[in-house]
Parts: sequence; structure tokens; C-alpha cells
Amino acid sequence: MNFYSIFGFIIATVVLYIGLRLSTDNMMAFYDVPSMFIVFGGTFASTAVCFQLNRFVVLFKIFLRRVIYGKKNLMPDAIKEILLVADAFKKGDSLSEVKKKIQDPFLIEACNIIEDGIIQKSEILSIMEKRNENITYHSMEEANKIKTVSKFPPAFGMIGTTIGMIVLLGELGGEDAMKKMGPAMGVCLITTLYGAVVANMLFIPVSENLIESSKDAFVKNKLIIEGVNLLMDKSNPILIVEKLNSYLSPAERLDWKKVVKK
Amino acid sequence: MNFYSIFGFIIATVVLYIGLRLSTDNMMAFYDVPSMFIVFGGTFASTAVCFQLNRFVVLFKIFLRRVIYGKKNLMPDAIKEILLVADAFKKGDSLSEVKKKIQDPFLIEACNIIEDGIIQKSEILSIMEKRNENITYHSMEEANKIKTVSKFPPAFGMIGTTIGMIVLLGELGGEDAMKKMGPAMGVCLITTLYGAVVANMLFIPVSENLIESSKDAFVKNKLIIEGVNLLMDKSNPILIVEKLNSYLSPAERLDWKKVVKK
Amino acid sequence: MNFYSIFGFIIATVVLYIGLRLSTDNMMAFYDVPSMFIVFGGTFASTAVCFQLNRFVVLFKIFLRRVIYGKKNLMPDAIKEILLVADAFKKGDSLSEVKKKIQDPFLIEACNIIEDGIIQKSEILSIMEKRNENITYHSMEEANKIKTVSKFPPAFGMIGTTIGMIVLLGELGGEDAMKKMGPAMGVCLITTLYGAVVANMLFIPVSENLIESSKDAFVKNKLIIEGVNLLMDKSNPILIVEKLNSYLSPAERLDWKKVVKK
Amino acid sequence: MNFYSIFGFIIATVVLYIGLRLSTDNMMAFYDVPSMFIVFGGTFASTAVCFQLNRFVVLFKIFLRRVIYGKKNLMPDAIKEILLVADAFKKGDSLSEVKKKIQDPFLIEACNIIEDGIIQKSEILSIMEKRNENITYHSMEEANKIKTVSKFPPAFGMIGTTIGMIVLLGELGGEDAMKKMGPAMGVCLITTLYGAVVANMLFIPVSENLIESSKDAFVKNKLIIEGVNLLMDKSNPILIVEKLNSYLSPAERLDWKKVVKK
Amino acid sequence: MNFYSIFGFIIATVVLYIGLRLSTDNMMAFYDVPSMFIVFGGTFASTAVCFQLNRFVVLFKIFLRRVIYGKKNLMPDAIKEILLVADAFKKGDSLSEVKKKIQDPFLIEACNIIEDGIIQKSEILSIMEKRNENITYHSMEEANKIKTVSKFPPAFGMIGTTIGMIVLLGELGGEDAMKKMGPAMGVCLITTLYGAVVANMLFIPVSENLIESSKDAFVKNKLIIEGVNLLMDKSNPILIVEKLNSYLSPAERLDWKKVVKK
Repeated sequence: MNFYSIFGFIIATVVLYIGLRLSTDNMMAFYDVPSMFIVFGGTFASTAVCFQLNRFVVLFKIFLRRVIYGKKNLMPDAIKEILLVADAFKKGDSLSEVKKKIQDPFLIEACNIIEDGIIQKSEILSIMEKRNENITYHSMEEANKIKTVSKFPPAFGMIGTTIGMIVLLGELGGEDAMKKMGPAMGVCLITTLYGAVVANMLFIPVSENLIESSKDAFVKNKLIIEGVNLLMDKSNPILIVEKLNSYLSPAERLDWKKVVKK
Repeated sequence: MNFYSIFGFIIATVVLYIGLRLSTDNMMAFYDVPSMFIVFGGTFASTAVCFQLNRFVVLFKIFLRRVIYGKKNLMPDAIKEILLVADAFKKGDSLSEVKKKIQDPFLIEACNIIEDGIIQKSEILSIMEKRNENITYHSMEEANKIKTVSKFPPAFGMIGTTIGMIVLLGELGGEDAMKKMGPAMGVCLITTLYGAVVANMLFIPVSENLIESSKDAFVKNKLIIEGVNLLMDKSNPILIVEKLNSYLSPAERLDWKKVVKK
Repeated sequence: MNFYSIFGFIIATVVLYIGLRLSTDNMMAFYDVPSMFIVFGGTFASTAVCFQLNRFVVLFKIFLRRVIYGKKNLMPDAIKEILLVADAFKKGDSLSEVKKKIQDPFLIEACNIIEDGIIQKSEILSIMEKRNENITYHSMEEANKIKTVSKFPPAFGMIGTTIGMIVLLGELGGEDAMKKMGPAMGVCLITTLYGAVVANMLFIPVSENLIESSKDAFVKNKLIIEGVNLLMDKSNPILIVEKLNSYLSPAERLDWKKVVKK
Repeated sequence: MNFYSIFGFIIATVVLYIGLRLSTDNMMAFYDVPSMFIVFGGTFASTAVCFQLNRFVVLFKIFLRRVIYGKKNLMPDAIKEILLVADAFKKGDSLSEVKKKIQDPFLIEACNIIEDGIIQKSEILSIMEKRNENITYHSMEEANKIKTVSKFPPAFGMIGTTIGMIVLLGELGGEDAMKKMGPAMGVCLITTLYGAVVANMLFIPVSENLIESSKDAFVKNKLIIEGVNLLMDKSNPILIVEKLNSYLSPAERLDWKKVVKK
Repeated sequence: MNFYSIFGFIIATVVLYIGLRLSTDNMMAFYDVPSMFIVFGGTFASTAVCFQLNRFVVLFKIFLRRVIYGKKNLMPDAIKEILLVADAFKKGDSLSEVKKKIQDPFLIEACNIIEDGIIQKSEILSIMEKRNENITYHSMEEANKIKTVSKFPPAFGMIGTTIGMIVLLGELGGEDAMKKMGPAMGVCLITTLYGAVVANMLFIPVSENLIESSKDAFVKNKLIIEGVNLLMDKSNPILIVEKLNSYLSPAERLDWKKVVKK
């Protein structure tokens, strides 16, 4: 479980609740069913034309899998796991044993191909590079779809407020026009609020989160490909650590004295 | 027929109707001929300067062909069809028989060229790659045209509201100015509403839909080109499935045990 | 003459006139000299700083030459003309005769270079490719200049309205403030209207039109380069048609049975 | 001196003055020191964080050197100057004489390197290409910095108006609230006006001007590099003119009969 | 310490203070805790979903390290330091002595690798180029993250104002509605003000600052790589100065007569 993301959503909810609470004690002032219907219904309808309905489930699954359950790509851990594989490979041990200790799915995939022993090293690397590009392409596409969808809630917020204003203004004209107008306009603005909140606290941050994690995964997979390259050459583990360290920011770098078993 | 798209439009219409209905019982409040004229007429006029009138029919045809009648590119089905062709090609059967069972137009085109038997394999692949690029270029261009057009309805919505406000404010000055102003302003806002709805429920989602399907078709055609490459080498069907699987997301992947005939 | 463009402008004018007319009978309500001055003068002044005055005439000429007089690039016609040249070249006839029947300026240029007979085929193709890139670069630059200019009219519309509001609000304070305010605000908004109309009915569509025709011309010229390549190899006319057809969308494709003389 | 740019600024000032004058006789209505302070001070402060203070002087120098003193890159003149150098080089004359007649700094630089006689032709061309890229990179960077800065004046215009509105609305509540509100709101809007004018008449056009001239200089320098390539091969002057003409638009092209000395 | 950046922030604070002060004597008019909470809390919450909480500390460290403590990359100084290293390398002296006089971290890193004496020259250059790309990629990513975050404060400013308006309008309807409305609306606008100020005086300039310094560092590191290339060839110091000068703008260029020791 990705506790950072869940924590982020909890923070967002709490901030929103306190923000509304600080403004008024009457929280019902922000509750309006037609406004909800216009913002969520409109966003749903436009997304249905954009991406076809069966994609909805997919987008929701992506959200769950990558934002809620997804784990941060920890590059130092990946280096350590590569060292384990390198050690086993050098000794000629079966990789099936070492695979159980590995968590990174891309490295496990690599181990599977190596274990098969059919494909040559250069081809293994080219297959892994192609898969990395493919994975990144698909995950960036998904993130960009959510970014596209993030433009609809504010648009429907605005549409809802316009609808409300048209109705409201159309009924003006009586004696107490100005008195009635105030509260009614407040209700109109709720749609704008819903649209802005949904976009800025849900869709935009989630799409940025996905873009971010796609890029991180791309760099991490490149590191793993480089690591597989080195381990198949049965390189010195110190050299492996030093070479892979160049993918990390200085603060993250591993000290080979600590990670290489003597 | 693409039922997802049609369903999307139905949902959009229903959402819009309910949204308006929730706001007022008097649906006529949202009906205003001059506003319609300004939004649709203005969008039409500006598009006529942008893309020349004869393109209109083309854009409309594209809409019908690709959004309404278009089918989702199903990559697993494409792999199955490639297996059929590969089987016939390996046995030396005539491809004209197997072509009847195939639905993908790009694969049929490939079969036609192979059947002719004149052009060499490497050249077949390069022609198919060029055609794929060409098709994608044209379909992306069309999608971007609709995206360009999608900026006009909100602009003319704003222009219409400004026109209405100029007239309305110019007539103010009498005793009951404030009383008349309300309903008249409501009418002004209808143009804004039309512009926002047309852009966000029609043009923007349709252009995104076309961009999406262009990208999908590009990847699917690349898969077919790779498949033709493999089948002309008379590769093992298991290998074909495994290699082409790498274009699919893990959930979509085919199990060769199920699709390869023993 | 490009009747589509002229028609487009006529439609735009008519739509605008009817749109205004539907709103009020008093068309003078939309006539305000200071507003015109601010929108057109401001756009002119900012453009003068952007691109230097002597470019104005050039931009206007481009508008006339490419939007009003320009013709749509008809790729099927270009293929037919290439066939004429190919026929003459194969027979060893002088190209000066066939050039008279050709309308495409890029193909005529190619004929001139071939006729000179000095430059080798491979160099002819590289020169033509360079020229095509050069032409496209310049015409895209021009279109982007007009796109840049298209941002000024709405900005000056907004500036004009702000100026008007400052003056208007500064004079408020008397008894009948609210009564005077209405009509005066109406006048302020006219500047906004001018800016929006000029941008959305003139500058934006014209720049899109130029971008569009630049891209079309680029593809058409690539087709001609390919055609010259084929004709200088004295290729079979059927092959020429079939190969060049791949640049066309399926609906436009020529049937070689109709266009190749027996 | 670049009279076109100076003229552009004069036009902008005159247009602005007339525009304001047409709206009111009381020009003092547009004079407000706090508004000026917020727009200019805020833009200055944000720019100081963006680019560090010592860059300010540099940006101002660039403005003077390139917008006010800068000359338009005249490609036909560059061709004529290349012909002069080519003539001297062919005859084996000293280039120091011909350099005095040349105005283009990039061509003078090239003459200096050729005169030194140490570096080989191919290396001269690669050095010149690298310098051209370097110059363009730096001048585009400078133009983009001004484009970045151009977003601050409207933002601070909006901030100033918001500050004014907060103060103004906070003081409402008395009897004559509505009467006081009008003129005070007018003053608030002045900040918006300043921000919009400064951005649209100064920063945006100047950045476009610099981008434009950077691109022009890049193409002109490429022409000179090609020219140096040709002249060092002691090519025929007619060939030089014809080859370099391809960098010009058809209307600018030189007639070699006029420019080549017999 | 980067005094320019610190100075920039001081200027921004002073400008903001004076700007507010010029508008009113009652500075408390701009102090509103709920508004602060919504803008900062909302920005924090959305950023927490975007980039995960542990990144916050990293982003803040980057801010301190690069904006406050970071130094401008001085390319002329880098050339002088390269000359020192070149001198020592030519004489065969130990680089450990000369390293103490050097400040540029990238050059020190290069010295370390050279001193080790294990890796070949061509590989040293390729490692340094890869590291330069890596460093630039990471620092641009960080700058872009701050740019992404800069969109949240104005959004939450708008959300806060909408919340305030909903509450305010909902309570209207009594006798003295108009009187109460003024001051309350003023309070609503404070959130907009906070959002605009935080974005335009903090996040946007800081992100531009980081982008700027990333680009500068990239060019400076390329200069150092070129310098290391030259010094390992034991090139003439005059040649080193002249070649590296081409990375500098003309005004910055070093005169080799002054910097090369005889």
C-alpha cells in the first residue's frame, strides 16, 4: 500500500473540511445535489465520449493499482537486489531461489528470461529496453488521459453556474428581486466550487502523481537493464555498485563497503 | 457500429437534460434562437475561413465513420487473425480464402500485397510502415482540426453574451432599469451556456476520441507489421503469440495454449 | 481565386450582421469610433514593435496571395501532371512543350532543372527537398506571425473596456449614477466585442488556414519529389500512379486504368 | 539605429495617448502612483528572484542593442558582401582590404579566421556552425526570459486591483457606500490597465521581436556559412548567387546578371 | 550564499509591504487566517497527492541549496580553474594539490577520476557527459515540479473566494444586505490575493530561477568536459582559452594574454 498517497488524500479531505468549517458553521450551505449531478454527470458524460465506457473501469483500476497500492520506486533497493542476482549468477546458482527475495517486478521478469537460457545477452537487453519503452508509453498515456479529464470538472462547474444564473435572472423582476438574488446566486456558485475542488484536489494531482511515477519507473528500469548488462558480464560487485550509483542523486548513493558482501 | 460512442452521446444528452431539469421546470428558459445562431453560425463561419467549405463534409464524414461507425482496435483479435494468416501461409494455401475471415483492413491490405507475390518481404514491410505513418498523420491532423474548431464555440458564446449586454445596457436608464435587467441578462448568458456545452460535450471529447483511436490504430498496425514479418519467416505460432504479446498490456495478453491450434 | 476562402469571409460577415441584427434593430449601438481606434490602433502598434513596419505590407500580401488568390493543393491533379511529364521524358520530348500544360509551380521548377540537363538526378532530388523544407519553414513562420498577432485584439479589447470603466466609474457619484452607468458600460463593452470578433473571425481562422495550406503544400511537394524520382527512372506509369497513390487518402486515390493512356 | 523599432514604440505611445484622450479629457484619471508602484515594483521583484539582479542590466542592454540599435538582417546584402570576399579570395588579394567594406559581423569573423590561414576549411565551417548555434541559443534564451517576465505585469495588475478592492469593500457599509464605491473602483482598475498595457505594448512585442530577429540571424548566418564554403572552393560567382538565392524568398532573390561583375 | 536570490526575496517582501501600505493604513485588512489556511493548506494537500510527502523535504532542501546557497555558475572562473589543472597535468604534478584551489564541484569530480588513472580518456569524457545529462535531467525535473505546484495557490485562492461568496450570499436577504455585503466580499477577495501573491512572488520566480540555473550549469559542465578533453591532450594553454571562449558571450571572453602564465 502506498501510504503517502493515502495520506495525501486524507490531508486533502481534512484541509477541505477545515477550510469550509472556518467559513461557516452551516456545512449544509455547501451541499447541493443538482450541482453535484452537473459536475460529476457532465464529467462522466464527456469522458464517456472521449475514451469509451469500458475504459472507465480501466482508469479506475489504474488509479487503485498505481496511486493507492503502487509503491515508490526505490532505486537503492533495486541496486541491492541486482547485487543478489549478480552474486547468484556468478556462482552459477539457480536464479529461482534468489527470485523469491526480489520484489521489483521488472527485475523478476529479467531473471525469468535469463533462467530460460535460450535468448542471447544482447537480445535480452534489447527486449528489456523495448518493454521499458512500452510500459512507459502506456503509463504516460494513462496519466495524460486523467489530465485530459481534469479539464472537464471546472468546465461543468462553470456550465452549472451559468445554468443557475440563467434561471435565477429569468425569475427576477418582482419587488424583492435583490433579496432573493443573493442566496440563489450562492447556490449557483456551489457548482463552480465543486468543479474547482474536484479538479485541483483529485484529477490534477493524481495525473501529476502518475506522470511522476512513470518517469521514476523508467529511470529505475534503465538502471536495472544496466545492472543486468553488468551482472551477465559477471562484473565485480564493487564496479556494479559504482556504475549504478551514477543513476542516483548524490544523497541516495550506496556505499559499496556496506552493501557488498566480503 | 461503435456502441460505446453512441452510448456516450446518449449519456451526454441525458445528463444535460436532467441537469437543466433539476434547475428549473421551465425548459423554455434555455431556448433562444439568436444565441443558437451566434454560437453555431459563428463557429461555422470561422471554420469556413480555417478549413474551406468542402472540408466540412469531410470532417462530418470522419465524425460518422470514425466516431459512430468506428470500432475499437482490438489487439488480441488482431493477433488471432495474424495466426490464421500465418497458418495458411505456412501451409502454402491461397490467402484469398483466409482473407474472408479477417476483419482488420490493414491486415487485409497486407494479405493483398503478399498474395500478389511480386514485392519482396523487406519492401512489403517498408511500404506497410510508410502507410501506417501516413494513415496516422492524416487521422491526427483531422483530430487536431476538430480540436482547433473546439475553441470557437466558447469564443462565440462570449461574443454573443457581450452583444446582448451591450444592447441591454444601452437600453437601461429608465425607472425600472434594475427590474428589466435581470431577465435580459439571463438571456445574454444563454449564449455562454451554448458555447460551453457545445465545446465540452461535443467538440473536445470528439477530438480526444479521434486522437485516442489514432494512437491505438498506430500501435495495432505496428503489431500487424511485426506479425507479417514473423509470418513471412514462417515462424512458430507460439513464438508469434509470445512476441506480439509484448505490444499488449499484461491483462490483455493471450495464452498461446488457448489460441494456437495443435 | 480561392472561392472557398472568399465564401468563408462572406459567411462570416453575414453571420455577424444577422447575429447583431437579431439582438437589436439599432445597429448603431455597435458603432463606436474610440473602441475601433483602441483595438485596431493597439493591435497595429504592438505588431509594429513585434515585426517592424515593412513586414506589414508583406503580411498583407501573404494574406492576399495565399488566402484570397491561393488555390487548394490538389494532389490528384499533381499526379496527373506528373504523368504528363513522365510521358514526355520517356519519349525524349522537350519538356518546354509539356510545361505549358502544367499548373503546379513546384513541378514547373523541377521541369526547368531537368531541362537544363546539367545537374545529376540525385542532386536534383536533394535540391528539391531542401527547397520544399525552405518553403514550408517560411510559410509556417508567416502563419505563426499571424497567430501571434491574433492575441493582441482581445488584449486591446480588454484594455479599452478597462479604460472606459475607469473613466465611467470616476464620474459616478452624482444622484443618477446608476442610470448613467448602464448605457456607458454598454459602450465600454463594445471594445471587448471588437477585439473578440477580430480575433475569432479574422486572425485566428486566417492563421489556421495558412498553417493548413502550408502542411498540404509540404505533402504535395513531397509527392512531386517522389514523382520526379520515379519519372527520371523512366518507371512504368502504372507504377507511378500506384506509388504516388499512397500519399492520398483512400477516397482520393486515382484509378490507373482511367489516367494512364494506353 | 533600428528606425522601425523606434517608430513602433512611437506609434504605440501615440496610439495609447489618443486612445486615452478619446475616452476622457481628464488624463489625470489614468495617473495613480500606488498602481504604478505595484505593477512595476512587483514585476521588478519577481524578475529579481527569477534571474538575479545583475541580469537586469544585461536584459536592458540586450533591449537597447538588439531592439533599438539592432539592424534587420538583410540577406541580399549578405550575398553581395560574400561576392566581394569571394572575388578577393579568388584573386589571392589580402582580405584585410575587403573587410573594411563589409558590415556583417559574422562574415567579418569568418574573414578573420580565413586570413589567419592556420585552420583548415572543414574545421572553419564546423567552428562557424558551432558559433551560429551558440549565438542563436543565447539570443533565444534572452528572448524567452523577456517572455517569462511578460507574464508578471498582468498578474501584478490583477493583484493591485484585488488589493484595492479589498480596501474599498472593507470600508463600505456607511450611508453613501454606493456613491463612494464608483470612483474608488475606477482607481482599482488602473492597476489592471497598467499591467495589461505594459505587457501587451512592451514586453510581449519586444520578446517576439527578439525571437524573430534571432531566427532571421540564424538563417542569415547559415547562408554566410554556405557562402564561405563556396568561396573557399573558388566557385563561380554565378553559382554562388544561384545557390545562396535558395535561402531567400522568391521576391528577394538577386539577379546574378546585376550583381556579378563581368 | 547567493546574495542575489536573498536580495530578490527581500525586494519582493518590501515591494509587497509598500504596495499594501500605499493602499491603506490598516494593514490588518489583509490578514485573514481562514484564507491563509485554504491557500497554504490546499496547496500542501494537492502537492502531497502529486509528489508524496517525503518529497516535500527534498523540494525544500533544493530550494535552500540551489536558490539560497547556490552560486551563479561563472564560466570565466571555470576556464581559469581548467588552466590551473592543465598546467599541473602537463608538468606531471599530482592533481591532489591543485584540487584544493578549485571550487567547481564538477571539475573536482573530473580531477578525481583523472587522478585514479584507471579509466581511459575517451571513457572519462563519456562518463562526464552522462553525468552532466543526469544532473541536468534531475534539476530540470525539480524545477518543473515547483512549476506544477505554482498552479495550485491561485486555484485555491479562487476556491477560497468562491467558498466565501457562497457563505456570504447565502446569508443575504435581510434588510441591510447591501451594507453587510461590502466588507464580507472584501474578506473573500483576500484568498484570491494570497493565491496570486504566493504564485507570482514565490513559486513561479523560484521555478524559473531553477530552470535558468540548470541550463547555465549544463553549458558550464559542457565547457568543463571540453576543457578536460583539451588538457588531457596537453594542449597549449592559449588554444584552451581560445577554444573555451567560444562558450562565452563576447563580453565575458577572457584575454589569454592576461590569464596564461608565461
